[in-house]
Amino acid sequence: MKVTVIVELKPSVLDPQGKAIQHSLSSLGFSGVEDVRAGKLFRITLADSGQSRPEVEQQIRQMCEKLLANTVIENFSYTIEG
Amino acid sequence: MKVTVIVELKPSVLDPQGKAIQHSLSSLGFSGVEDVRAGKLFRITLADSGQSRPEVEQQIRQMCEKLLANTVIENFSYTIEG
Repeated sequence: MKVTVIVELKPSVLDPQGKAIQHSLSSLGFSGVEDVRAGKLFRITLADSGQSRPEVEQQIRQMCEKLLANTVIENFSYTIEG
Repeated sequence: MKVTVIVELKPSVLDPQGKAIQHSLSSLGFSGVEDVRAGKLFRITLADSGQSRPEVEQQIRQMCEKLLANTVIENFSYTIEG
């Protein structure tokens, strides 16, 4: 089972990495770049243990809350395939 | 116009960050995690300059090749909304 987790800074949190990329793109001649936000993506392969979909979703949420995301400043989302 | 760019290590390239996360998840008690690959995600907001879709796609590909991705070891993909 393949899970894709996306972790992004909350919209209200400043993103210096994104700003740096935005300025670099402008310096390289790309015009019209109004905003850049940088995030993280994790492709997780889970063994098929016969868990129900809700159980898998709960496990993923716990992974995000305990390790992958800092929920004080970051939001996470996930998609499950297969 | 909002563009989401995903940059990931090529499948043949070792991902020590992903491996570290995999081991951390196991240490935290999450069983059945077979693999973790870590990637980057960029949310780019472009000004609406009347460019055609192929022109926007070409611009995004150039951004990836020049700045966002190291195409020797990384693949990139993108989705365009609005």
